[in-house]
Amino acid sequence: MRIGTGILLGWAAALAGGLAARADEGMWTFDNVPVERLERSAGFRPGEAWIERVRLASVRLSDGGSGAFVGPRGLLLTNQHIALGQLQKVSTPEKDYVRTGFYASTEAEEMKCPDLEVHRLERMENVTDVLKAAVEGLPPKAAEARRREILAELAAARTRETGLLCETETLYRGGEYWIYLYRRFTDIRLVFSTEKAIGFFGGDADNFTFPRHDLDVALFRVYENGRPLQVTHYLPVRESPPSEGETVFVAGNPGATLRLITASQFETLRDLAYPTRLAQIEALIAGLEAYGAQGKEQARRAYGALYGIRNARRTVVGELEALRDPAVLEKKRREERALLEGLSGRPSLRRDVRRALREAERAERIRRREFKVLFYGSDMPGGTLSKLALALVRYPVETAKPDGSRLEPFQEANLETLRSEILSPAPLQADLQEAFLATALEWLQAELGPQDPLVRALLGGEPPRDVARKSVGGSRLGDLAFRRRLLDGGGEDEEASSDPLLVLARRADLILRERTLFLREEVAAPLEWAAEVLAGARFAAQGKSMYPDATFSPRLTWGRVAGYEIPSQTVPPFTTFFGLFDRSSAFGGRGAYALPQRFQQGRERLDLSKVLNFASTCDTISGNSGSPCFDREGRVVGVVFDRNREGLSRRFYYDETRARCVAVSSCAVLEILEVLYDAGPLAAELRAASGEKAEPGI
Amino acid sequence: MRIGTGILLGWAAALAGGLAARADEGMWTFDNVPVERLERSAGFRPGEAWIERVRLASVRLSDGGSGAFVGPRGLLLTNQHIALGQLQKVSTPEKDYVRTGFYASTEAEEMKCPDLEVHRLERMENVTDVLKAAVEGLPPKAAEARRREILAELAAARTRETGLLCETETLYRGGEYWIYLYRRFTDIRLVFSTEKAIGFFGGDADNFTFPRHDLDVALFRVYENGRPLQVTHYLPVRESPPSEGETVFVAGNPGATLRLITASQFETLRDLAYPTRLAQIEALIAGLEAYGAQGKEQARRAYGALYGIRNARRTVVGELEALRDPAVLEKKRREERALLEGLSGRPSLRRDVRRALREAERAERIRRREFKVLFYGSDMPGGTLSKLALALVRYPVETAKPDGSRLEPFQEANLETLRSEILSPAPLQADLQEAFLATALEWLQAELGPQDPLVRALLGGEPPRDVARKSVGGSRLGDLAFRRRLLDGGGEDEEASSDPLLVLARRADLILRERTLFLREEVAAPLEWAAEVLAGARFAAQGKSMYPDATFSPRLTWGRVAGYEIPSQTVPPFTTFFGLFDRSSAFGGRGAYALPQRFQQGRERLDLSKVLNFASTCDTISGNSGSPCFDREGRVVGVVFDRNREGLSRRFYYDETRARCVAVSSCAVLEILEVLYDAGPLAAELRAASGEKAEPGI
Repeated sequence: MRIGTGILLGWAAALAGGLAARADEGMWTFDNVPVERLERSAGFRPGEAWIERVRLASVRLSDGGSGAFVGPRGLLLTNQHIALGQLQKVSTPEKDYVRTGFYASTEAEEMKCPDLEVHRLERMENVTDVLKAAVEGLPPKAAEARRREILAELAAARTRETGLLCETETLYRGGEYWIYLYRRFTDIRLVFSTEKAIGFFGGDADNFTFPRHDLDVALFRVYENGRPLQVTHYLPVRESPPSEGETVFVAGNPGATLRLITASQFETLRDLAYPTRLAQIEALIAGLEAYGAQGKEQARRAYGALYGIRNARRTVVGELEALRDPAVLEKKRREERALLEGLSGRPSLRRDVRRALREAERAERIRRREFKVLFYGSDMPGGTLSKLALALVRYPVETAKPDGSRLEPFQEANLETLRSEILSPAPLQADLQEAFLATALEWLQAELGPQDPLVRALLGGEPPRDVARKSVGGSRLGDLAFRRRLLDGGGEDEEASSDPLLVLARRADLILRERTLFLREEVAAPLEWAAEVLAGARFAAQGKSMYPDATFSPRLTWGRVAGYEIPSQTVPPFTTFFGLFDRSSAFGGRGAYALPQRFQQGRERLDLSKVLNFASTCDTISGNSGSPCFDREGRVVGVVFDRNREGLSRRFYYDETRARCVAVSSCAVLEILEVLYDAGPLAAELRAASGEKAEPGI
Repeated sequence: MRIGTGILLGWAAALAGGLAARADEGMWTFDNVPVERLERSAGFRPGEAWIERVRLASVRLSDGGSGAFVGPRGLLLTNQHIALGQLQKVSTPEKDYVRTGFYASTEAEEMKCPDLEVHRLERMENVTDVLKAAVEGLPPKAAEARRREILAELAAARTRETGLLCETETLYRGGEYWIYLYRRFTDIRLVFSTEKAIGFFGGDADNFTFPRHDLDVALFRVYENGRPLQVTHYLPVRESPPSEGETVFVAGNPGATLRLITASQFETLRDLAYPTRLAQIEALIAGLEAYGAQGKEQARRAYGALYGIRNARRTVVGELEALRDPAVLEKKRREERALLEGLSGRPSLRRDVRRALREAERAERIRRREFKVLFYGSDMPGGTLSKLALALVRYPVETAKPDGSRLEPFQEANLETLRSEILSPAPLQADLQEAFLATALEWLQAELGPQDPLVRALLGGEPPRDVARKSVGGSRLGDLAFRRRLLDGGGEDEEASSDPLLVLARRADLILRERTLFLREEVAAPLEWAAEVLAGARFAAQGKSMYPDATFSPRLTWGRVAGYEIPSQTVPPFTTFFGLFDRSSAFGGRGAYALPQRFQQGRERLDLSKVLNFASTCDTISGNSGSPCFDREGRVVGVVFDRNREGLSRRFYYDETRARCVAVSSCAVLEILEVLYDAGPLAAELRAASGEKAEPGI
């Protein structure tokens, strides 16, 4: 699993609020770890030092996942599928690390990642009071604009003062505003990764399932000034597997959840957003598969993108199923009624809530009326190259504006990240980018019709494939030096104005801006206003005994190692290496069930009874991929890489009966490093870390 | 799985007719193997010799299952759970073969079964014309009586003439009447059985599931005149596992199916019969568990009965789920409408069908009105001892009547089987029988109320536990010599009249007879009449291109070895020994997942990649347990022992998408015999059989 639901859901997160948590539920911010609840449910009350250590040991990866420091020399544990993007970028037709895996037996051999960043949350500053005071009494549209302005100013100021990466966090949707200050590491080197055949064993068919049999593991090392980062706070791996019923924790960066959207938002998702997204995904998959079918090298190039988009398909299908469960919508309606009833003693607040629900409904009606135009109206169609083109076109325009008026990626606090993306040395294969753009343009034409202004601006009456060929084929944007020149030369020169992809992006930009503005003013602003009222009412009713919706920022959750029942089977909490070989044999060792040679040849030497993957009730979602799963002593028992199919409902609600978080066990990682990958030194480094004395406070 | 739904469903089978088969569907009688269809679907057209050999090599076991001759010296392959009853009967507190398994390394050590019979279908005689002529023009009640009379006469006559076991078969419900002539073998010796821990690995939780990991295997040897039976027609085992997609056949004795009951019957099952049966089962399980909880020896005694009843619970729960699927009833209604529409050119037949459907509805209304009284009105409550008591009470009365007027078990053709049951030397533990009776009496009182005549006759105002204690405790029916004396002495002596269990049975008998008669005349007779009309209409429309509902008589089916998709997983067609050890490890080797020591210790010597169990689309149901699953050359690739959960719907319809037949692979059987059970000679005998030349015609 992987984040990347922004396209679909970013806007819908607007109303996501908090809700009272039950049992093991909750993605808690580090300022509000519910220690009493934890003590009641798990008999363990962590101290401040424990919480701080966990926060500093767990990190966010810019490729859309999470990870943890597992030793004092910057060693970072995460998933193979989170490393996949970097593996793909350093691979060539001759040397395909996605297929072969990678291991650097010395630090000198560690391989620098082209554009991976690691973000560690150093501090959190609550700026709610400043924000509230600034927008007090303003009408929705004006409040929305003023809020963006102030948040940009605050973040920029803190960036200047601290040199840290400062991000604004809107939590409980207007219930709280924060500045999150991250230390940003950019020299990240690959130490180890499994092959895709075992990292993603079972392929798309086994994705989001359990029992599962994947060694979805990679290790990076974070460098600073050319040397391994000295890390004080880390979580050493534990040799012994977790036991059934054991309490385990997950610290990571869950992507967007939508647990407290209103019933009216929920219906738009169910009836329009998800079905549209699913159709779009199918079209994109078909386009990429056709490209990949042209040859072995094309298949290699398309692999990463196809992995991501098939992963998204599984997510969308599962979430759509959850959306279509009538009981879920009914529950949401009941909650809205209960909120109103709970406010019977506060008539003014109650009136506000009623108005907020009506306002949200009105905004959703506008969205539904203009659905496809708005759905496709916020981004340039196509792959990375298209997105870069739009960013380069917008860069000089946006950076000339005052900070608070810019589009978000161009605000001072985010500018460095954006520049890194534009200046990434990762290869951009023109033929793959052309396939992306051609597929997207064909789809857009079919969806919006040939008379839609955006479609006309992009195609100018020509066939989509011709436009894609001419735009990508004639563009020099794949050349890093060219991009650098454009970025720092202001983009106003002859080359920039004549590059066909930039020309295309410029034509699209006008219409995209219009549509984005309409979405913001007519839909997002009233929804934000409504959400803030609802969040306030919930705070008034429940205090801070709830957690905010997930926003791909650091959170802590916990649960139990546990199996479950499905109609056709009792599912145990564990799989073992036995199970891996069973599943491979059962499918005749073919396709996604083919094992790497080292597994076939080394089978006899493995301890087959070792726990391979395990399931827990921890409340995780996409973005948690690569998160450490650890015990109360802070020892990592596994690395989170998936949810089961039943867990896909977690976008909308937490279910303890069958939804499960799925992790690779640490003991399996040690086993394969030593027995199959000839990576004794790396295993020794992991073991040594766990041999060190526990830090004070633990 | 195991048959034994008679209590619940025997009556409902009345309207079960035939239906047009699709794809791999169908439980075909041996006189009507659809060779053209088979050739079209599997590219194989069996000849008459092939069909005859299969019929003669596959047998019915009196304990409710099927089996196959797998070698020339009477060696018979079936399931451990079919051998379970006999294993239990020869076990003692000191020597528990259910727990330890059994292997006779020489023929001298083979262990005689107390009361197991093997029935091989030698001939089939179609007597439809005689029957039709005899009842022509009679009204329903009279026709029903006359038909029973003639069938009894025909069977008795053929028994006298041939010395064979002659059973009447009503197929296509009045579409056809047959006499099936079986060779009956009564000297059956146990050669090999696995332990329950591996024969029923995973226990009740894994029953009716797939992926599955059971070695549910036993081997008997059939003797004649004190020597191993010389067998000409047998199916040798195949060393290599079946391959995915391979066509495989199953010959066995499927128990009752209810695929063409009317919509009105279907509703009675769904709303009354199944829920009532399920509640009764739960009560019985609770009673037996309480008995078994008294100690280790009680647990041993109760095991077989508990196995059977828990198995029944799983079946009933799964079938009830299928019944409650609104689409299934809707389909049934559509079929009834389609049948009527298809007869638009034959107004008289159409009128008859309409009347038949109305008549069935009327009969069902009567049944529903008197539901519980009739449901509990056909049998003596309690365990084997109670049933024996009723049989002994009825024996002199019934055998004094003309054959055709007797209750069915007392008719000449069935009398030998009944006598064997009464005179079985198998032990009947009084305390277990008392627990059975006490539980059944308590349940009956709760269900029918204390004023019900049957309840009053049985309890006479006393508490159920007291009645059970006095009746069983004071009875001598557990003594075989006593039963023999009663049977042949006419049952009129002093002892018979004073034995408290016989007294109880005599009191119940009067009321049971009344209720049985009411059920037969007011419900069964009109349903039979209606069913015959419907069967005739279907024959008129489709000819004999359909198969009759299953009746625990020999049938042939075929299908493909195939996995399937469930919402949460792609299920492969195979499991391997790897999977067995995975599942045991995943559950910590506890409870039903504990492996016998020989498996733990011998693991290293096993080829873990061998296929253990496999799934196929073969159309099987309870009663098929122990059936050979074989390839087109007649080589046994596995022994059928279960369906998956999704396959429980097969009582009512065939589903190819997810319903699967589950078998133990022959290669796994050979592997464990040689590697774990030190049973080389037995494995060699199996191999030698497969080494023989194929018979002519194959």
